[in-house]
Amino acid sequence: MNLEHGQTLLFTGDSITDCGRERPLGERAGLGNGYVALVNSLLDAWYPQRRIRVLNTGISGNRVDHLEARWQTDILDHRPDWLSIMIGINDVWRHFDYANNPDQVDNGRYQTTYRNLLEQTRPQLKGLVLMTPYYIEANATDPMRAKMDQYSSVVEKLAGEFDAVFVNVQAAYDHYLAFRPTQSLCGDRVHPNQSGHMIIAKAFLTAVGFDWNTT
Amino acid sequence: MNLEHGQTLLFTGDSITDCGRERPLGERAGLGNGYVALVNSLLDAWYPQRRIRVLNTGISGNRVDHLEARWQTDILDHRPDWLSIMIGINDVWRHFDYANNPDQVDNGRYQTTYRNLLEQTRPQLKGLVLMTPYYIEANATDPMRAKMDQYSSVVEKLAGEFDAVFVNVQAAYDHYLAFRPTQSLCGDRVHPNQSGHMIIAKAFLTAVGFDWNTT
Amino acid sequence: MNLEHGQTLLFTGDSITDCGRERPLGERAGLGNGYVALVNSLLDAWYPQRRIRVLNTGISGNRVDHLEARWQTDILDHRPDWLSIMIGINDVWRHFDYANNPDQVDNGRYQTTYRNLLEQTRPQLKGLVLMTPYYIEANATDPMRAKMDQYSSVVEKLAGEFDAVFVNVQAAYDHYLAFRPTQSLCGDRVHPNQSGHMIIAKAFLTAVGFDWNTT
Amino acid sequence: MNLEHGQTLLFTGDSITDCGRERPLGERAGLGNGYVALVNSLLDAWYPQRRIRVLNTGISGNRVDHLEARWQTDILDHRPDWLSIMIGINDVWRHFDYANNPDQVDNGRYQTTYRNLLEQTRPQLKGLVLMTPYYIEANATDPMRAKMDQYSSVVEKLAGEFDAVFVNVQAAYDHYLAFRPTQSLCGDRVHPNQSGHMIIAKAFLTAVGFDWNTT
Amino acid sequence: MNLEHGQTLLFTGDSITDCGRERPLGERAGLGNGYVALVNSLLDAWYPQRRIRVLNTGISGNRVDHLEARWQTDILDHRPDWLSIMIGINDVWRHFDYANNPDQVDNGRYQTTYRNLLEQTRPQLKGLVLMTPYYIEANATDPMRAKMDQYSSVVEKLAGEFDAVFVNVQAAYDHYLAFRPTQSLCGDRVHPNQSGHMIIAKAFLTAVGFDWNTT
Amino acid sequence: MNLEHGQTLLFTGDSITDCGRERPLGERAGLGNGYVALVNSLLDAWYPQRRIRVLNTGISGNRVDHLEARWQTDILDHRPDWLSIMIGINDVWRHFDYANNPDQVDNGRYQTTYRNLLEQTRPQLKGLVLMTPYYIEANATDPMRAKMDQYSSVVEKLAGEFDAVFVNVQAAYDHYLAFRPTQSLCGDRVHPNQSGHMIIAKAFLTAVGFDWNTT
Amino acid sequence: MNLEHGQTLLFTGDSITDCGRERPLGERAGLGNGYVALVNSLLDAWYPQRRIRVLNTGISGNRVDHLEARWQTDILDHRPDWLSIMIGINDVWRHFDYANNPDQVDNGRYQTTYRNLLEQTRPQLKGLVLMTPYYIEANATDPMRAKMDQYSSVVEKLAGEFDAVFVNVQAAYDHYLAFRPTQSLCGDRVHPNQSGHMIIAKAFLTAVGFDWNTT
Amino acid sequence: MNLEHGQTLLFTGDSITDCGRERPLGERAGLGNGYVALVNSLLDAWYPQRRIRVLNTGISGNRVDHLEARWQTDILDHRPDWLSIMIGINDVWRHFDYANNPDQVDNGRYQTTYRNLLEQTRPQLKGLVLMTPYYIEANATDPMRAKMDQYSSVVEKLAGEFDAVFVNVQAAYDHYLAFRPTQSLCGDRVHPNQSGHMIIAKAFLTAVGFDWNTT
Repeated sequence: MNLEHGQTLLFTGDSITDCGRERPLGERAGLGNGYVALVNSLLDAWYPQRRIRVLNTGISGNRVDHLEARWQTDILDHRPDWLSIMIGINDVWRHFDYANNPDQVDNGRYQTTYRNLLEQTRPQLKGLVLMTPYYIEANATDPMRAKMDQYSSVVEKLAGEFDAVFVNVQAAYDHYLAFRPTQSLCGDRVHPNQSGHMIIAKAFLTAVGFDWNTT
Repeated sequence: MNLEHGQTLLFTGDSITDCGRERPLGERAGLGNGYVALVNSLLDAWYPQRRIRVLNTGISGNRVDHLEARWQTDILDHRPDWLSIMIGINDVWRHFDYANNPDQVDNGRYQTTYRNLLEQTRPQLKGLVLMTPYYIEANATDPMRAKMDQYSSVVEKLAGEFDAVFVNVQAAYDHYLAFRPTQSLCGDRVHPNQSGHMIIAKAFLTAVGFDWNTT
Repeated sequence: MNLEHGQTLLFTGDSITDCGRERPLGERAGLGNGYVALVNSLLDAWYPQRRIRVLNTGISGNRVDHLEARWQTDILDHRPDWLSIMIGINDVWRHFDYANNPDQVDNGRYQTTYRNLLEQTRPQLKGLVLMTPYYIEANATDPMRAKMDQYSSVVEKLAGEFDAVFVNVQAAYDHYLAFRPTQSLCGDRVHPNQSGHMIIAKAFLTAVGFDWNTT
Repeated sequence: MNLEHGQTLLFTGDSITDCGRERPLGERAGLGNGYVALVNSLLDAWYPQRRIRVLNTGISGNRVDHLEARWQTDILDHRPDWLSIMIGINDVWRHFDYANNPDQVDNGRYQTTYRNLLEQTRPQLKGLVLMTPYYIEANATDPMRAKMDQYSSVVEKLAGEFDAVFVNVQAAYDHYLAFRPTQSLCGDRVHPNQSGHMIIAKAFLTAVGFDWNTT
Repeated sequence: MNLEHGQTLLFTGDSITDCGRERPLGERAGLGNGYVALVNSLLDAWYPQRRIRVLNTGISGNRVDHLEARWQTDILDHRPDWLSIMIGINDVWRHFDYANNPDQVDNGRYQTTYRNLLEQTRPQLKGLVLMTPYYIEANATDPMRAKMDQYSSVVEKLAGEFDAVFVNVQAAYDHYLAFRPTQSLCGDRVHPNQSGHMIIAKAFLTAVGFDWNTT
Repeated sequence: MNLEHGQTLLFTGDSITDCGRERPLGERAGLGNGYVALVNSLLDAWYPQRRIRVLNTGISGNRVDHLEARWQTDILDHRPDWLSIMIGINDVWRHFDYANNPDQVDNGRYQTTYRNLLEQTRPQLKGLVLMTPYYIEANATDPMRAKMDQYSSVVEKLAGEFDAVFVNVQAAYDHYLAFRPTQSLCGDRVHPNQSGHMIIAKAFLTAVGFDWNTT
Repeated sequence: MNLEHGQTLLFTGDSITDCGRERPLGERAGLGNGYVALVNSLLDAWYPQRRIRVLNTGISGNRVDHLEARWQTDILDHRPDWLSIMIGINDVWRHFDYANNPDQVDNGRYQTTYRNLLEQTRPQLKGLVLMTPYYIEANATDPMRAKMDQYSSVVEKLAGEFDAVFVNVQAAYDHYLAFRPTQSLCGDRVHPNQSGHMIIAKAFLTAVGFDWNTT
Repeated sequence: MNLEHGQTLLFTGDSITDCGRERPLGERAGLGNGYVALVNSLLDAWYPQRRIRVLNTGISGNRVDHLEARWQTDILDHRPDWLSIMIGINDVWRHFDYANNPDQVDNGRYQTTYRNLLEQTRPQLKGLVLMTPYYIEANATDPMRAKMDQYSSVVEKLAGEFDAVFVNVQAAYDHYLAFRPTQSLCGDRVHPNQSGHMIIAKAFLTAVGFDWNTT
């Protein structure tokens, strides 16, 4: 596995990452009840011989412009070895639930802002993980799913540019949705139950080389 | 309008009807915060000269089998002049979110149980209103929407059999969804905000002959 | 209807407008549970093809002097296309319930302050709506009702001066009170239940040219 | 004063009497925060040499038919020397706020039920006090005030029939309203602040021969 | 009565005055639940023709040195016509319950501080009322009672110096204690129930010339 | 010390014993925060080699007649080796704070009831401890203290009759009051702080032969 | 994997199993926040094509005798295909924290009661899983660990007798403790954080043939 | 006993000292529910003739570096005659439960910081008490116990250097653990119940010359 003993792994993003983590910094019991805590627990259970410090600075409702506003204090100041970002769901969602509000992050602004953050950060990192946003909807022509896929494409592109581990969370959900309905994971197709968070955690760890057969 | 001065109008159903109404009987300030309260307020504001007693016995999570179990105490004992029923959303939903649970109400059981309730009740009523269940999803091929439409067809059929006013709530939502996304009304495509409840109230009142131009 | 697609409509005033709205700005689910939310819901249900952003900055207990103190941040800074004001109930009420307190807004101060606010605002607006304060009491010789009518006259006069849509809320309540007692709407003749708020919403929308027969 | 050392004085009635008293029996610190507690405190402060046990079994929302249903356990079983009753406000009010509900206590039913209670109780009492219901509204032609006066007339008549001390609470309020507005006492013209309860306590004690000049 | 129509009467002191009043200023419903509220209610019930504004700035736990620290903002800035002070209970009590704490207000410091406050205030007042502290204990040789009497003597002396109405609250309690035990008023001999507060209110109003026989 | 390894020691009584213990049976962390918990902690800290099960069935407000009503379930059914009783404070107190209530336990009824309980219980016990009630007031002529001493005399007499360890709690407090004021222990002279409970615990343990010099 | 599509898997036990599950039956979102929920989430994420209904009837504080008392209603009545039991921690723990209480389940009573439950249940099951109790303490000579191992031996023996899948939870913890201190998992060596529950879930699933490499 | 009449004794430390004390300064009823309050109660009960002011400024989670940061305001500014310090448990514990966090206080930093605090404080004190940290675990080879013993040795050494009363809390617990299991005192071997706090209080008082046989 790519994460080494003694390293710090920081997760940031929106409500999917936040999940009730402690302020100002989520750590151990304060990691929240989402995929970040599951990643931490899986690391402990599978790799007890490696001590990896997991941190969480996700904030509910964040879009990429909110991340930008707190990048120094919430990400850079913690000096992580590895950084994992999942952002974009609210950038898309606001076009649908707050359509009357003119303050929107379109695809171009999303890409520009995101790239700017990566440029100032990548050199300081040992590893970077970029996770796609997602919409837990199997129908790819659904308007919000279709728009989300466009933002996910930006993430995939940026992952290539910045030598990042790319985690296709949308694809992981699509695999699940081939067998089960979206309602088995959540009501709003965004905030999943623990099973949905486990799907994210599995995708993340597999992408960073986790060996599931380790005793 | 078909509702006359001095009559009692009872609404029953699931969480869409319940909306936090008072127990054991919802009336006036205890009607909850959904379409039932809006119908009551619209009647008061448009028809102050008619005193119509509005009651609410909806219970969240109910399927048609739950209605059957409490039919005598929660519906018949209140001796309404008009009865309005909206049931079926949970009958469908449980197939998707509790698919592992074998206790399900399929379309046949839904129709049989529903008809049985109407048979024992219709003779005592001055008027009956049957409202379709719905799924706030524009795509008619979505699995849960498709199944919901089958249950709605049962409601339409029963409305014909029992000389009931038929309210196609799904159609009312579809009209809205032609212009706006589902996310502007709710997260889970089932429990709407007040705008969604207003759509139901508008459909209900129009169906019972409400004259919107009344001063 | 006079409100156009893409416009912003801001409501401000006292507790009747406030109704528990979110701070610092009421929008969508944060509009409170009064007439403002009902106006928003009726717009959505009748005119889904027009996206109108509804905002609420009412604060409970406000008199016109309180509005003046927060006019820049709570009204002008939001740059509304349409502005609707309902103020005056507390200006009158304090003469009755806090009569021993020498700090009172008499009719002259009310008019002067109100006009001053309109003068600095009207040029920036596409439309202005002035709603009368009211007292839900049919007897026009009741001391508080009589005084309230004097303040309402000021509102009507200002509406004429500033080319505003005038909404006579008192008259709307009087129509209702011709058929029903005040106790059916509220206890204190000021803070109504949802039926009372629906009367305000109906009066407001009718005044701005709402077509109730629109499908 | 007519109340003697060692006697028990029981108050019963509706919310005006209840005022948050303890269940099942209000006594000392559990008398609630209304006129009953004030009567108790005034007795203690003016007549420390007389020990008078004051009890309270008022229940909010009660009409005379509710009193009837609990007469044995809540009044007779406590074997008071003196009994004071104030009932009727809700009998009248329900005609106005729940006009759509057919279950109403009209003036005739009020008188019959009330008389029946007094007949079975008067012989066991050393003293009986009947207090009128009231509406804190100076205008005697106000519909609810006018109806309340009719019920008060019944109380006055019954006081004569049963050799009771008659307390005209409405008259006591009218004296106050000659100088001050109703809004200085309460919002809904029924549930007063402490000043309003003091008016009731003063009227009660004066009627039972309280000597205010006692040191 | 010495209090005139249109005047403002401000009470200040410790927990006996505070009694849960509103911050920053107690008025009307915010006067707390002690003797201040009772004085206000008795004034309303006996003298409705006089409008007297009653204010409360008592704070629990205060000694005279605490009053001094907030004298400008909490007393002088409100510009009362009449000022009533009751302070001293905590100055004494701390000698008994916090005897180990060296920060104590002895009798000399009490007198000096108190006089200083009166000197800067008396000229601005139409009337001044000084109330003794008290200990609800009949035995004058009880250590805390004996010490309290010494502080009360200071109050009486200052009342003479500053042309103040003197209210001997201790004497009023002693009259009561001649007939009833201290336990009938309170547990700790300091914080009484409403009967005890009524004793204070009666003493206060009698001292300012209240005519109890006024209709 | 008289308490042996393996024995059960049950305390019962009123609020002094109760102190928030768990229902239905206080044990270990559920012993409450009074002298019972302190006795348990002192036993653990001084005699770790003896395992003594401490139980608590005190109930706030109890008089000896309340103990009688629950004697079987709350005392006998637990089959204690040692039983410690402290009862009588409320038997006396009610004469003072609820003097108007005719339901009182006078000294004679106290003795008769208490003796009856001991007669049916003593034969089953290995040891019995009777603790006096008390009033934390140094002045022996204070009315409530004087009456309390009479009840304490009954306890001392019964201790002699039933071969019980007698604990003079009043005397223990008197020793303390020779140096410090009652206010340093509590407000109402009945419910002490932890220092007061420690005085009881010390008296109890010394009486049962506790060796304070044990390492 | 041994668990098949359409099967029901019921977990029962003590607080480790309970973890705040819903009453009366834990299912889906009501499975609690322990290893049971993790097993459910891992099944969903790894095997979406198999629908396995997971139920939870654990109750905090239970020993094997408590399980026996509710076996019919909480286990048999749900007719599981697979049953998983983890019981014994409290049977051991009570010897240490409630040593003074004579009601203890020794090793013999543990084995007898446990076997009795299995005998009446095994024939109805498709599969049975027996999990050892544990103590998260590496030192095998620690008194509570040593005693726990004796009870674990009983579980292993019973697993052999009843053809059950045996899960050695203690061994799974021991592997972890070879690298990390017990304090990284929990405070009391019994109730772990999510990492500790993940260790249990991993052990359980591996024992029932889970293929971690399944996509 | 070494503590004299009129002296102030200040305790500071971590959660064991804090125990819910009042902010900003714990005194009397605000001393918390741990050993500090017990010491205060034992002093009152055994030595009523000596008035000793006990203060508490412990804060949960503190290590010696946290003490250093607040030394001036929380210790020196209170000018105690006697100072008692118990610190070190968290300095050790963080190595075990937050091992991944690089911010640790090793033994050297512990000693340096501790000595620095004592050097600036000792000259101002009449007496100093240094209490060891502890781990309620009998096995001296347990990793956390072993490390704790190293920090305790530092405390013993510093006590010698600074003429302090040395309290070996670990030894006091070890005596108890010779007879009873750790589980009888607490779950996490750090935060004991009242019995554990009594062991600390006993050790403290014995060390400062408390005469347990004083009447």
